[in-house]
Amino acid sequence: MKSNLRLVKTNLLIVFILIAANAIAQNDPLPSWNDGAAKKAITDFVARVTKDGSPEFVPINERIATFDNDGTLWNEQPMYVELAFTFQQIAKMAPQHPEWQTTQPFAAVLHHDNKALAASGDAGIVKLFIATHTGMTTDEFARTVSDWLATAEHPRFHRLYTQCIFQPMLELLAYLRANGFKTYIVSGGEQEFMRPFTEKVYGIPPEQVIGTQFKSQYKINGGAPEIERLPEVLSLDDGPGKPENIERFIGRKPIAAFGNSDGDIQMLEWTGSNTRPNLELLVHHTDADREYAYDRQSTMGKLDKGLIEAAEKHWIVVNMKADWKTIFPSATVQ
Amino acid sequence: MKSNLRLVKTNLLIVFILIAANAIAQNDPLPSWNDGAAKKAITDFVARVTKDGSPEFVPINERIATFDNDGTLWNEQPMYVELAFTFQQIAKMAPQHPEWQTTQPFAAVLHHDNKALAASGDAGIVKLFIATHTGMTTDEFARTVSDWLATAEHPRFHRLYTQCIFQPMLELLAYLRANGFKTYIVSGGEQEFMRPFTEKVYGIPPEQVIGTQFKSQYKINGGAPEIERLPEVLSLDDGPGKPENIERFIGRKPIAAFGNSDGDIQMLEWTGSNTRPNLELLVHHTDADREYAYDRQSTMGKLDKGLIEAAEKHWIVVNMKADWKTIFPSATVQ
Repeated sequence: MKSNLRLVKTNLLIVFILIAANAIAQNDPLPSWNDGAAKKAITDFVARVTKDGSPEFVPINERIATFDNDGTLWNEQPMYVELAFTFQQIAKMAPQHPEWQTTQPFAAVLHHDNKALAASGDAGIVKLFIATHTGMTTDEFARTVSDWLATAEHPRFHRLYTQCIFQPMLELLAYLRANGFKTYIVSGGEQEFMRPFTEKVYGIPPEQVIGTQFKSQYKINGGAPEIERLPEVLSLDDGPGKPENIERFIGRKPIAAFGNSDGDIQMLEWTGSNTRPNLELLVHHTDADREYAYDRQSTMGKLDKGLIEAAEKHWIVVNMKADWKTIFPSATVQ
Repeated sequence: MKSNLRLVKTNLLIVFILIAANAIAQNDPLPSWNDGAAKKAITDFVARVTKDGSPEFVPINERIATFDNDGTLWNEQPMYVELAFTFQQIAKMAPQHPEWQTTQPFAAVLHHDNKALAASGDAGIVKLFIATHTGMTTDEFARTVSDWLATAEHPRFHRLYTQCIFQPMLELLAYLRANGFKTYIVSGGEQEFMRPFTEKVYGIPPEQVIGTQFKSQYKINGGAPEIERLPEVLSLDDGPGKPENIERFIGRKPIAAFGNSDGDIQMLEWTGSNTRPNLELLVHHTDADREYAYDRQSTMGKLDKGLIEAAEKHWIVVNMKADWKTIFPSATVQ
């Protein structure tokens, strides 16, 4: 059985990687984190739940960690990456939609009229999302997203959006996985907008990516099955939608949850109610020089009630400026 | 780092288990399957997709296998196990609902009036499901299901329902996993009815169980977060709902799919459209002596169009009577 021998080899390889990882870890599993309360809380927690025979030991199959994406794993200013994608898609699709020149909220996007766009409110944003995210097959949408991400750059950092990810969080993902955690994304972003890049960029496979979902419809087109994305939201994965979808997709309560905005509060509350030892953390964007500084007044990633609840519930609040040595990966890996 | 050393040990253990499994596999990975076309098609397929360097090799992260549950992994006659649960719950809850004595479809269940029950149709069944499956928290429902499964027995086989599982399919699940496959359940049954037992009984963890889903609502009750099950179906995981939910939950097309009824056709079609080598299989219940014989005329697990499509598309059709040496596990493991 060649295939089993292959698995034996794979597992021997894992053993050697783990031995190597162990050697590195003894130096520092989180080299981009400054020594401080946040880093210590993380490493102490991992030590507690992985200590064999301890009453706080958590079996591997219950080591679920959930991460918000926008503002937690990658940059979300001056606007959510998915919103930048949406606006650029509207511009690209406009020639086929002459009516958009005089119809809101499309006209606002095409004429860079932020006042009119703001006036269109959440309902306006949903219309833009539906126009750009639905009415095609799942395969077609994945290709459109992949093509866009291959060249789209951040307006300030002039690097690909997929390189505007947070190096300290990449280390945290790897550190948790090296300790037997299964890492999930649980994001307000649309699920299929994330799946084309999360495996390569974060090491998170599509089946561990949970986000806002549109309804869909299976059909046969010219003999070939396809799934069409329908213009109606099935589930909004934000606020209370996060624990609801965690329960629906994973069916276990996480023991660790990471966010950065008020939309993550319920996910952290839910994780905090685990009878197992658990860890909750919010990234506070405090570094205007290296990234952005924002919280209570921000349109994107507003963090207001979260700071109050963090203080009450002893959630870890990362001070990006003080706690992180570096923000983005130095090597420009695609 | 104790935890990494622990993982090293775990992986060394996996290596030894795989070496042992390899030795057994060289004898026969599917001992409860008689030699024949079905068994050969399965083992040939696994050999092809796991052969390193072959053009048909499929990377481990794409080795997704999806299994229907009712009639594919466990018995579904004389009625779906979940329907038996539902009827018994109705009887148990009846004292608190005196109005059910005179209201359909509840009266039909309480008075064993199959004619009235049939007359209530699918809408009646949905009412029974809503009355027994919703209006409580996810934790409460999981406990109710676990308690019921701990003692509920099959009326003919006089063994626990969780022991009326198919031994050949248990071997198939283990064989695929030993070859790097990730095994999923994709069932018309309600998701949270399955999760309390699938990990122990099939080795399938809750995050790999996809089923019909009810809407839910996160809320804080006396300071504690909980998720309430709402009386409205979010997604029906049957027929076209199967590929729709596979795409939503897994985000990859399976390379192997296993079913037994017309409700599995679309899942098999979807899998068959994979550009990777792929395998589709239907279990045909042909053994009235050891289990049940049914197909085109059956109310539960009707298999009619599936047999036609199987012939056209060269899906494997398992003849239970001829292909399976044993039906249920001999040891009564709980």
